[in-house]
Amino acid sequence: MQTPWEYRFSQRTQRMKASAIRELLAVAEKPGMISFGGGFPAPEVFPVEEFTRASKYVLENLGAEALQYGSTEGYVPLRQMISRHSIRSGMQVNINNILITTGSQQALDLLGKIFINRGDRILVESPTYLGALQAWNAYGAEYISVPVDEYGMRTDLLEDALRTGPKFIYVLPNFQNPTGTTLPLERRMKLIELADRYGVPIIEDDPYGQLRYEGEDIPSVEILDSRMREQNGTYTGNVIYLSTFSKILAPGLRLAWVVAPDNVIHKLALAKQGTDLNTSTFNQIVAHEVGQHGFIDRHVEMMRKVYLERRNAMVDSLEENMPEGVSWTRPQGGLFLWVTLPEPFNSTELLPQVIEDNVAYVPGEFFHADGTGKNTMRLNFSYCSPEKINEGIARLGKAFKKKIVRG
Amino acid sequence: MQTPWEYRFSQRTQRMKASAIRELLAVAEKPGMISFGGGFPAPEVFPVEEFTRASKYVLENLGAEALQYGSTEGYVPLRQMISRHSIRSGMQVNINNILITTGSQQALDLLGKIFINRGDRILVESPTYLGALQAWNAYGAEYISVPVDEYGMRTDLLEDALRTGPKFIYVLPNFQNPTGTTLPLERRMKLIELADRYGVPIIEDDPYGQLRYEGEDIPSVEILDSRMREQNGTYTGNVIYLSTFSKILAPGLRLAWVVAPDNVIHKLALAKQGTDLNTSTFNQIVAHEVGQHGFIDRHVEMMRKVYLERRNAMVDSLEENMPEGVSWTRPQGGLFLWVTLPEPFNSTELLPQVIEDNVAYVPGEFFHADGTGKNTMRLNFSYCSPEKINEGIARLGKAFKKKIVRG
Repeated sequence: MQTPWEYRFSQRTQRMKASAIRELLAVAEKPGMISFGGGFPAPEVFPVEEFTRASKYVLENLGAEALQYGSTEGYVPLRQMISRHSIRSGMQVNINNILITTGSQQALDLLGKIFINRGDRILVESPTYLGALQAWNAYGAEYISVPVDEYGMRTDLLEDALRTGPKFIYVLPNFQNPTGTTLPLERRMKLIELADRYGVPIIEDDPYGQLRYEGEDIPSVEILDSRMREQNGTYTGNVIYLSTFSKILAPGLRLAWVVAPDNVIHKLALAKQGTDLNTSTFNQIVAHEVGQHGFIDRHVEMMRKVYLERRNAMVDSLEENMPEGVSWTRPQGGLFLWVTLPEPFNSTELLPQVIEDNVAYVPGEFFHADGTGKNTMRLNFSYCSPEKINEGIARLGKAFKKKIVRG
Repeated sequence: MQTPWEYRFSQRTQRMKASAIRELLAVAEKPGMISFGGGFPAPEVFPVEEFTRASKYVLENLGAEALQYGSTEGYVPLRQMISRHSIRSGMQVNINNILITTGSQQALDLLGKIFINRGDRILVESPTYLGALQAWNAYGAEYISVPVDEYGMRTDLLEDALRTGPKFIYVLPNFQNPTGTTLPLERRMKLIELADRYGVPIIEDDPYGQLRYEGEDIPSVEILDSRMREQNGTYTGNVIYLSTFSKILAPGLRLAWVVAPDNVIHKLALAKQGTDLNTSTFNQIVAHEVGQHGFIDRHVEMMRKVYLERRNAMVDSLEENMPEGVSWTRPQGGLFLWVTLPEPFNSTELLPQVIEDNVAYVPGEFFHADGTGKNTMRLNFSYCSPEKINEGIARLGKAFKKKIVRG
């Protein structure tokens, strides 16, 4: 239908593209489909009883506050809880460094809004989280890509990229979306030193940090950066840190947070006010109630067991079913692993056939700002049961064997 | 604290200004304060029991869906409910014309994102909703203002404004925020005809339409526009219509909706995906559960009684307490009325003194894109009890008498 609006879309609108994840969510709803596409937590681990108790408590005791408008920065006790948690992990923050956002996607949008002028270059990993690209495309961002290998961002290639004058660096150091790789301590230090040398700040996106299934925790870039600067006596808040309740409680709440210097939080809050006034007060108060008395730590402990089993199921099943020449990452945490097909196989072209076999993934090219990665794909292992994972990977292996072995 | 981020804010950020409402929310938290500042519903009317029942039901029966990610367009049964409600009111829509947003503020932001290029002129009422100005300032909007009198937008002055080539018209026809005025049928028809003659589409913001306390409902601009075009056989979807659950259920949910042509909904959804992925699934499903079986109609019926009493209290109290030369509107619905002081009194300058007397309002100049209205102010009558309203208006009258009578 032609409407008078048709001719009035902004230039910005021309730059927005439908995302592959979007189309996949639609596809994944087909009956019989085993989807490794979305970034969904396992519904089995949602703490439904705890939410039921907390919702009842909050409505009965704090109903008038929970159903009313709230402050743009967020519900104070929830910000205090996050502040305490951040300090325990080693961050030098207080409540004025915390902003609650309507999911991490909103944090990415607000950061784009307050920092990106059209044509600004953002230094990203290749591949990187496609939601960040989507948020920042709307503000006219350009990208400089630094490749990722099995240990995350290739910091040996970072310096050339930094010399192009990016506005900031965007990095997912823990169990990266989409590859599942984790940046080792040495690379984190190299990243921080180079960023400092070139005067370029860093946005660290850490949705999965607490979901480690094996190996030792590595301090966040935020913490390592502060430590380095503390020794030099020049703390400057060079890192903005993002995390979320989506993966440790439930994405249906749309609750996440930003840790940033006061002046950045102030601008983000100003932008947020024009964007959605405040994040749902009800959800913030319920999440605070659920998160009391160490519940999240216990809950995460349980989730780690469930997800480790699923990661193992997927890795073992790939081993068993994939034809020669296909490789994959073995993530120590998070929700995703990354599969690489032999060249010149194209995962976007293969997808419609695979969907006919009732299995789905996200083609890798959508995570690359530089148009590479056509022979890669992202698989999610958190959503499906181990049985479904085995069945889905078997279907995928069969489809790839047909293509790859027989050509 | 200086940080590396300080020098990296976008041009857009320079255009964002702190809003008066923001500062007032802070002030209104002082003990003893009677605030007519915010746009808060009465906490006494929140259907807390209904929410308690619905939350329990939803978590026990639809927990896995309610806590998971959802579709960007919104929860289908909720969109169907809104679609049915819209059709009953006379709109020609289906579910594909409905998008759920995270409060109406998000609808304004997304509309700005998909339509406004820097420097585009938006035709607004003067005064108008300051949240719209705040949302669109970020996209570099300029404004053409058409004055409002006691019957809303002065459509006799509209044609000159339309000849400047605005991108769209933004209008709040029912119990306008901030003035409380309602656009009569003849002016609505004049607006629609002139918009059609100049080929300029309309955004109709209707958060309070159901909150009418006296007089007869007037069909929305959306409906009148469709009717006119139907007769001519040329339906083109010239009007985008916004409404919200904030005023008929609870703002703490952050739930609102847009009614628009399919192609606009598609672009809005694309923009929304990069902004917050989807509106809280939990809140959408709970609101749907609460809204079943005609609950909202019964609830609104009750709210009308409560708010009529408060509007009467405020109007009577103004009559009793205000010095000569002060005038105000008598809204037939909504949450606000509008006070005009004799020139040259400046409500922004008076505010700090008035706050010392423990009463607050929003100075009128913030609602004017054209810098006029310095002698006006917005008073909210929904939030405080009739007793508080009487006390607050008495304080205000005393403060004004001191200033205005004695000069």
